[in-house]
Amino acid sequence: MSPLLSRGYLRAVLPWVRGARLSAGSRGASGGPGGARDSPAGASWLQGEVDRFGGVSVRLGALDRLDAAAFQRGLQAAIQRWRSEGRVAAWLHVPILQSRFIAPAAALGFCFHHAEADSSTLTLWLGPGPSRLPGYATHQVGVAGAVFDENTRKILVVQDRNKLKNMWKFPGGLSEPGEDIGDTAVREVFEETGVRSEFKSLLSVRQQHRHPGAFGKSDMYLICRLQPRSFAIQPCPHECLRCQWMDLAELARAADATPVTSRAARLLLYGHREGFDRVDLTVAQLPAAHTGSFYKLYHRALPDPYKTMAGVD
Amino acid sequence: MSPLLSRGYLRAVLPWVRGARLSAGSRGASGGPGGARDSPAGASWLQGEVDRFGGVSVRLGALDRLDAAAFQRGLQAAIQRWRSEGRVAAWLHVPILQSRFIAPAAALGFCFHHAEADSSTLTLWLGPGPSRLPGYATHQVGVAGAVFDENTRKILVVQDRNKLKNMWKFPGGLSEPGEDIGDTAVREVFEETGVRSEFKSLLSVRQQHRHPGAFGKSDMYLICRLQPRSFAIQPCPHECLRCQWMDLAELARAADATPVTSRAARLLLYGHREGFDRVDLTVAQLPAAHTGSFYKLYHRALPDPYKTMAGVD
Repeated sequence: MSPLLSRGYLRAVLPWVRGARLSAGSRGASGGPGGARDSPAGASWLQGEVDRFGGVSVRLGALDRLDAAAFQRGLQAAIQRWRSEGRVAAWLHVPILQSRFIAPAAALGFCFHHAEADSSTLTLWLGPGPSRLPGYATHQVGVAGAVFDENTRKILVVQDRNKLKNMWKFPGGLSEPGEDIGDTAVREVFEETGVRSEFKSLLSVRQQHRHPGAFGKSDMYLICRLQPRSFAIQPCPHECLRCQWMDLAELARAADATPVTSRAARLLLYGHREGFDRVDLTVAQLPAAHTGSFYKLYHRALPDPYKTMAGVD
Repeated sequence: MSPLLSRGYLRAVLPWVRGARLSAGSRGASGGPGGARDSPAGASWLQGEVDRFGGVSVRLGALDRLDAAAFQRGLQAAIQRWRSEGRVAAWLHVPILQSRFIAPAAALGFCFHHAEADSSTLTLWLGPGPSRLPGYATHQVGVAGAVFDENTRKILVVQDRNKLKNMWKFPGGLSEPGEDIGDTAVREVFEETGVRSEFKSLLSVRQQHRHPGAFGKSDMYLICRLQPRSFAIQPCPHECLRCQWMDLAELARAADATPVTSRAARLLLYGHREGFDRVDLTVAQLPAAHTGSFYKLYHRALPDPYKTMAGVD
């Protein structure tokens, strides 16, 4: 996928996605009848707005007096106009209660780009060759917390209640939207086991495609090393069949642990014996390109001179 | 989110998502008129099928003779029946050409769970308390390739054509659906620069939320260390404003490099001088829980004795 039409393109259309600006369609709606007029040359509610990559975005308003057939005629005229103007793509943002306009748009070649809660976004590629429009989110993110107590060498493990085959694993679950990896680990561990913990490092990243637990999308599963802040187990009755503190060496040898849990346990055993600096990815917070926001970056610990390049020849 | 209704739940409803099985709705459609009959007790095209978590899934067929009002009456009756039967959730899978049924469903409380290409999925939570249904994919995955030539100590860097501010960065882009991290890095490097390379290790993971380049979703950005297999640069005119081999120490000090590129360059310099084993995450392929498939797992190199636990006390 060409970055020209991926990240960059999305930056350009984002205002529409966020609904941060009003489109012609919305103006038509707020303007009353004008929003529902069907002028063959391209209805006012389909003027849209051109982004800096040559695509056009239309956000449909409340076109209560417009029937699907009139919409389709207007959209067909608009598509012809957009093609003649050299637009490379059309984006159609449809409030869920206006979804009667989706099938007519699909009949003209539009397909779903994504939908969430109360609106959907459709796209039509108008440029040369195959579509170069970027896709939507492709991965869910799951995080597991490996809570290890260095004093007792015990690690917190669970067996899910709703699994067909009971295997030992680390407590964990899906990240909430906007939630950092470490926060998901600490939250999920507490929700499942009642144990409070603190993020220490990222240990492992797993990528799995066509995941049955992700509507066929991909799954990114991250395992964090956590330090316990409490030890009393109060397992969630909905989630946990079994939950206990297990000797780390025992888990590393256990036959009834999932392959990724077994591998992580061996990594932790190596770290416990040789030093966790051998296995840890530390976290740093860096400023994002777009002002004001920050992101978390995980990598191997970097000696201070290299961080600043002070005294490094 | 409760795993009971997240990964587990999705495993149960996946057949619907994949369309691997026919629902009553589809049978109704294939059965012709029966699919369009509107019986008050709950139309045949709304029988759906119960999953093992107490939710009901309905896949709408081609209900050409059914108008939106009749659909809404039938759906309302079905919702009452599902509630009386103690169903916790309803899933409605709607082909894009049947989207006239979306607004009537929304009027009864359904909202979009997701949509892609030619179909959408709506959900209605029927259980006690707030919805515990799992969300859809939350992250896009971008991968950058840090192609470093140990012999010349030069690294491949680019400046994007469509960036408002020109900063040196590594070539990269979004993962295609189902594509492994390392494959994305090698593909994007070749598409942007014409340089062929080979995956060596994963260096860094970045998580960024409300990403302007991800329709406001989250972004997972991974940097891979690649070894060059060719050196001639043929920059993509659409994507690259500038592309060159730059001395690694120079990039590590460059003021006009993005923060994450600068940090990765310093990590690479440290690895080049002290040994890449200090900074690399190696990759292993392990069997997935569901038979037949495999996944890639990235973590610090694990000494062989710990991999097998042979001779480890």
